[in-house]
Amino acid sequence: MRIFTEPDRKIWQQLCSRPQLELEFLESTVRNILLRVKKSGDAALREFAKQYDGIELNTLEVSHEERIHAAQSVGAALAQAIQLAASNIEKFHRTQLKQQSPIETMPGVVCWRKAIPLRRVGIYIPGGTAPLFSTVLMLAIPARIAGCDEVILCTPPDKNGKVNPAILYAAELAGVSKIFKTGGAQAIAALAYGTETIPATDKIFGPGNQYVTKAKEMVSREGISIDLPAGPSEVLVWADDTANPAFAAADLLSQAEHGTDSQVMLVCNQNQTAEAILSALEKQLETLPRKEIAEQALMNSRAIIFSRDEDALDFINSYAPEHLIINTRHAESKAGRIRNAGSVFVGPYSPEAAGDYASGTNHTLPTNGFARTFGGVSTESFIKYITFQQITREGIQNLGPAVMEMAQAEHLEGHARAIAIRLNDLQK
Amino acid sequence: MRIFTEPDRKIWQQLCSRPQLELEFLESTVRNILLRVKKSGDAALREFAKQYDGIELNTLEVSHEERIHAAQSVGAALAQAIQLAASNIEKFHRTQLKQQSPIETMPGVVCWRKAIPLRRVGIYIPGGTAPLFSTVLMLAIPARIAGCDEVILCTPPDKNGKVNPAILYAAELAGVSKIFKTGGAQAIAALAYGTETIPATDKIFGPGNQYVTKAKEMVSREGISIDLPAGPSEVLVWADDTANPAFAAADLLSQAEHGTDSQVMLVCNQNQTAEAILSALEKQLETLPRKEIAEQALMNSRAIIFSRDEDALDFINSYAPEHLIINTRHAESKAGRIRNAGSVFVGPYSPEAAGDYASGTNHTLPTNGFARTFGGVSTESFIKYITFQQITREGIQNLGPAVMEMAQAEHLEGHARAIAIRLNDLQK
Repeated sequence: MRIFTEPDRKIWQQLCSRPQLELEFLESTVRNILLRVKKSGDAALREFAKQYDGIELNTLEVSHEERIHAAQSVGAALAQAIQLAASNIEKFHRTQLKQQSPIETMPGVVCWRKAIPLRRVGIYIPGGTAPLFSTVLMLAIPARIAGCDEVILCTPPDKNGKVNPAILYAAELAGVSKIFKTGGAQAIAALAYGTETIPATDKIFGPGNQYVTKAKEMVSREGISIDLPAGPSEVLVWADDTANPAFAAADLLSQAEHGTDSQVMLVCNQNQTAEAILSALEKQLETLPRKEIAEQALMNSRAIIFSRDEDALDFINSYAPEHLIINTRHAESKAGRIRNAGSVFVGPYSPEAAGDYASGTNHTLPTNGFARTFGGVSTESFIKYITFQQITREGIQNLGPAVMEMAQAEHLEGHARAIAIRLNDLQK
Repeated sequence: MRIFTEPDRKIWQQLCSRPQLELEFLESTVRNILLRVKKSGDAALREFAKQYDGIELNTLEVSHEERIHAAQSVGAALAQAIQLAASNIEKFHRTQLKQQSPIETMPGVVCWRKAIPLRRVGIYIPGGTAPLFSTVLMLAIPARIAGCDEVILCTPPDKNGKVNPAILYAAELAGVSKIFKTGGAQAIAALAYGTETIPATDKIFGPGNQYVTKAKEMVSREGISIDLPAGPSEVLVWADDTANPAFAAADLLSQAEHGTDSQVMLVCNQNQTAEAILSALEKQLETLPRKEIAEQALMNSRAIIFSRDEDALDFINSYAPEHLIINTRHAESKAGRIRNAGSVFVGPYSPEAAGDYASGTNHTLPTNGFARTFGGVSTESFIKYITFQQITREGIQNLGPAVMEMAQAEHLEGHARAIAIRLNDLQK
């Protein structure tokens, strides 16, 4: 990990650059998958399962028995941990629900907004070596709190046609309606267009490999809503000389182990601190099971020294990290000055891992600098607002003349007449 | 306008279809415009102004003098109407601001969310015959309430290089920071990438012709945020035998006059009602200044009879209208059962025109069925949320073991170690 000391602002943009996903070459492959599912539905999904997952599936849906059996096969310690996480996630996401009281903007003109849950949402959970049951909680719990009628989950089966029990347990706990054994771009196609057994959904959530990412991008161009634009995961650790170097090193590694395209950034107030952290990191890396992945991710990574807090803050807000750990003196007041980040972890005992799993905040967050404009997934990601207005006879008499004046100035006489016809009628 | 009586559910999808924008052929034209602005900045904008707006511009920015002068040249009645609208819009959009109190999800684990305004937003206002100053209010007022640092407005100049005074007046009133004379796809490019004089913005709002729509779609694929996916404007009027046919007809026409691609839909409980409304519509159409536009829009339009309210509600929720006017008996209780719409106008004295201009609700709304998933522009469109967490020594001891259990089950040992290193340190 290269150290940059007091880098000139001219190279900040370069220091803020992310590893780029090369997705363009996937376009034709993914388009074919989308078209095949659109055309052949379940038959296409079964063919893909045979081709990619190496399994012949009779039924795509996980049966009630499989769900119950799997739930029982999860060990007690893990089940308890998942329950604790679910409880914290529920508590935090419940605070995000609100209804708005009607307001009388002028006498006789009452306006209000109403939160309406999306009817049916789709969740994609990748398969592979890491069974991401934590993501099931992060997406299905807010969906249930929002009041969605149906939560549809797709995830690829293993070679025996099974879904990981912890995923099924988390799905049961979070209230997922239906679970289907299908993965990759074809699962996104199914959630977007629907098949004979999988219902089309209003919005698609969840992480995935480059095929999944490309498929989400492509269906979103067709007007199907998705959670967030995707990019590799990242953390920025801001540590000063008061930080325990071993803590900061462990935090950097917990992000680096995610994938070879992850990025970890370190911002320190002095060279000595950075060096102590990088030395602790080298030591901890040696025994990390996913050492090879982390090593590659560290090649995308940078340590940057700013002696002035102002510069560090400016740089961090320019980088707009998905995760930001502030492990410095006065961490709380510094947190108050962050404008661009997905989720912020304040102080020495707030590692990213806590928020990844169980503290209550959501772990589906904006990557790749999108934190400049987007927030992460919240209960609001599963609702939309409708505005309403109810105007009385008195109200239209108060408001109408202004509307007519403006409509005529915009040369929209028909708008003015929709008011005039009512005002005239009231004068009869 | 053709009448469909009790149509079979099998043809609902067809009845819910919208006039399609043909945008694909624009892709290469718009790509060239985007590239030219990216490459040549202001010089490209000046060339486009010469080519498309027929004007040689020395400076792109509207000067302080022009702004003040224009504001003074707006007639008193229009100025007062705009002030009234601005006041109502401000009142309604202020109610949408909220901060969330921190919550302790378990002892020592405190999580919170903070609303952060987008720093710099871009507003596009089309030129042409209808100077849409109302849209300036609808976008710039929520931006100011949200707390955006800068609001940048682009709009094409007329042949004398001027911007319509009412647009400048509304911009002044709503607190727009800077106004630039540039229109079309090139304006979207400038707001997306920035030029020597126009700063790049974080999110681009506003309506426009097919080039503008295509440009917004294309920059959004590059990760620049936009307000809403676009489509032609539409209204659905739900009227029963208690409705004044002339009111319903005027409401249909006030939407039909928007553009030849607008769509108006009428849902009635009996044929007689529909016929009375259509007959009033024919009569009102005769004297409408924008008759030719409205006539074309009416060709995209349908009247549908449902004797049962349940069917009407199902159909309306399937169609998901941008604007919905409920001019029936028990309008308020029916409004409570709407799940998919942009904005709902309840009762005989609540015409769409009121919300288009001045009642307080926003007029930037989801078209083309997007109301199934999206709400319209609100104060929240100009903010994002960051989540925070602060965990104490006690908190990490309470939460840590569950995090480790889950991380290990996901085979992410590095995550578990970021917890373990802290728990071990606390036991020293």
